[in-house]
Order: sequence, then C-alpha cells, then structure tokens
Amino acid sequence: MTTTPKRGCFITLEGIEGAGKSSQVAPLAQLLQEHGLDCVTTREPGGAPIAERLREVLLDPRNTGMSGMTELLLMFAARAEHLAQTICPALDAGIWVICDRFTDATYAYQGGGRGINPAQIAQLEMLVQGDLRPDLTLLFDVPPRVGLARARQRMGAADRFEQETEAFFVAIRRVYQERALAHPQRYCVIDANAALAEVTQQVRQCVTNVLLMS
Amino acid sequence: MTTTPKRGCFITLEGIEGAGKSSQVAPLAQLLQEHGLDCVTTREPGGAPIAERLREVLLDPRNTGMSGMTELLLMFAARAEHLAQTICPALDAGIWVICDRFTDATYAYQGGGRGINPAQIAQLEMLVQGDLRPDLTLLFDVPPRVGLARARQRMGAADRFEQETEAFFVAIRRVYQERALAHPQRYCVIDANAALAEVTQQVRQCVTNVLLMS
Repeated sequence: MTTTPKRGCFITLEGIEGAGKSSQVAPLAQLLQEHGLDCVTTREPGGAPIAERLREVLLDPRNTGMSGMTELLLMFAARAEHLAQTICPALDAGIWVICDRFTDATYAYQGGGRGINPAQIAQLEMLVQGDLRPDLTLLFDVPPRVGLARARQRMGAADRFEQETEAFFVAIRRVYQERALAHPQRYCVIDANAALAEVTQQVRQCVTNVLLMS
Repeated sequence: MTTTPKRGCFITLEGIEGAGKSSQVAPLAQLLQEHGLDCVTTREPGGAPIAERLREVLLDPRNTGMSGMTELLLMFAARAEHLAQTICPALDAGIWVICDRFTDATYAYQGGGRGINPAQIAQLEMLVQGDLRPDLTLLFDVPPRVGLARARQRMGAADRFEQETEAFFVAIRRVYQERALAHPQRYCVIDANAALAEVTQQVRQCVTNVLLMS
C-alpha cells in the first residue's frame, strides 16, 4: 500500500526589476533543506523546456511591437506548461516549490504596466490554474528608482521589460502593494530597500514563521 | 475630408491535413483581384512576425509533450498578434483578407482532437476577438484517409500535428462538419475529395455568389 505524501507548499517571490528577489532563491532553498524539506526552485516565465522557449520570445528586445493581449496569453501559455511539467508534479509528490514570479506578476506587469483589465487576467487565471494559488508570496518592495539603478548595474543588454520607463514600474509596484493589502494571509512584504544581509534575514524570519505553523 | 473605406471581407479556409485548402489561396486571391478587390493572403498559426515564431514552437515535432492547455493558449496568443498586426488593419482599410485556418481550426484541433472543452475555447475567442468572426468560411471536406495520404506525399518531415493518428483527424473532421451545420450562413462546404480543377471551380462558384450579394 502506498501513502499519498503531504502536499508541498508553493512559495512565490515577487517584485519589480532590481528588487533582489532572485538573489533570495538559493538562501531560501537552503533554509527549507535545513528543515529537512525537499524543494525545487524555478522561475517564470519559464521553468519547463517549452516555457523557456516562450520566455525567449517574451523577453526578446526586438519584439517591442507585441500586442498586450499576445503578451498576456503567452505568459499564461508558459504558465500552463510550467504547471503541467514542473509545479504540479512536485507539489503532488510532497516537494516544496520556490518560484521566482508567478500570476501576481501578471496582474502587476500586464495589468498595471500594460493596462490589461484585471477581470480578463482573473478569467485566464481560473482557466489555467483552477483554484491553485501560492501558499506564501514574498513581495520584495523597493522604490522603482532604486530597483532600476540596481538592474542597470547588471551585465548584459536590457530585456524587453527592463527597457521600460520608471512610470511603468511605478504602476507595477502599486498593483503589487494593492494585492498584498488584499491578500494579507498569503503575502509577506519584505523591505527590499535594506542591505542584502538584512533582506535575507527578513526572508528567513517570514518563512520560519510559516514553517512553525505548518 | 477623408472617407472611411467599406470594411473588407474576412474569408477563412478550413480543413484537415491534405484537404487541399492551401492550394486554393492563390486562385482565390486572383478571383478577388479580377473583381477589382484588394486582398491580402495570410495563415494561422502565424501571419505576423511574432506569431510565426510561435508557429515554430507549435509545429516543432520535438515538442510532443506539450500540454493541451499550453497549445490552446499559444494558438490564441499567435491569433491576438495576427489580428493586431495583420487582419484588423487590413479589414479596417477596406482590404479583403484570405486566411488559411482560423478559430474554427481551434475548435476542431484543440477541441475535437485534444479534447479541450469548447466552452473554454469560446471564452478565449471572446477575449481575443470580441465579436469579430469570419464573413465566409470555406470548409474543404475530405475523408481523413485521403487527406493523410496526400499530406504524406509532400516533401519534408511531418510536423507535430501531421504525426497524429487517423482517429485524431476523424474527430477533427467531425467538429468541422458540426460547425458547418451550426453556422450555415457563414460556412460553404467544398467537396475536397474531387479533382483539383473541380475543387477550384467549387471555390469560384461559392465566392462568386458572395461577391454578387455584397
């Protein structure tokens, strides 16, 4: 007789460009492993072979003329593949999933940034995810000016989103903050304007609280 | 003072692999030009630069494991781009559009072939197209065994759809036939089992009738 493992927790990291969330993926995975938990780390858009091909199309700076609806549907196409191939099989097997961006980013970027009606995003969220939502979302909150200055210090050319103006990221941050207020039981807001070691400490504190309750 | 041109007509060609519809695009364009009408010819998935990149992902035979929902959303992502960049600007400028496959193919292939719920397809159709529907759809109807035998005589490797079984195309043909019955005012069914010259003649007859009424 086989027993069904306890379902894994689904943790997402959100924030604008240069918020520092991607740097926290590895420390967070280590923290979970210290607590004896299996986990996988992944990212959006991407996280599965076909979804990574779609990521290339989405981030390619030559694709500046892409319509907002195309961008929205491509994000959910990549997400459907990511869920089918990576996220759901892991959660079902009792493995925790740490994901660098998920559907909150779609509300923030395609909703706040591109002006897509959030009701249309909610419709696609229901179609693709059913009732699957993250168990915990860490929002790395930082003023856009600070985030963009950090992002521009990175090596490499700016992708299609990084090329956007500060006003675009102000709108995105606002949606993230509104969603954190609307879903306080799921969101944990991290002050990402702080020094790196302090941000890591805030993440540890927040996730440790969740571990103690689970 | 500028005058708004009379909106162009939107003609789609549908059918299973090997039905011979693509061979009818050029003769149909020529017929319209003989009647003094400007037209563009295009195809799905594709018909705009980003949509053609998505076509590559959709047809790539290495992508056999793609989830049905990913395929559905990719079709509509490509369609959103095709509408924004190619179809709507042409129709608005009074140019007729001849399109090799459109949303009826999604009902047939992703609905009939892959088993996606048609209500979910209808939801995406409304999201992406609003009330835009083809003015005329030519359905090239052929038994799957005949179509597949023709398709296999073509040069080149089979794409991800052409690799499917006969049962897959039987289901697709059934949906096409059901849709033709449900929308008789828009559909014209062509007997594509006939010889090429006779098929061309059927297309001319059908479109000439439409031209006389417009």
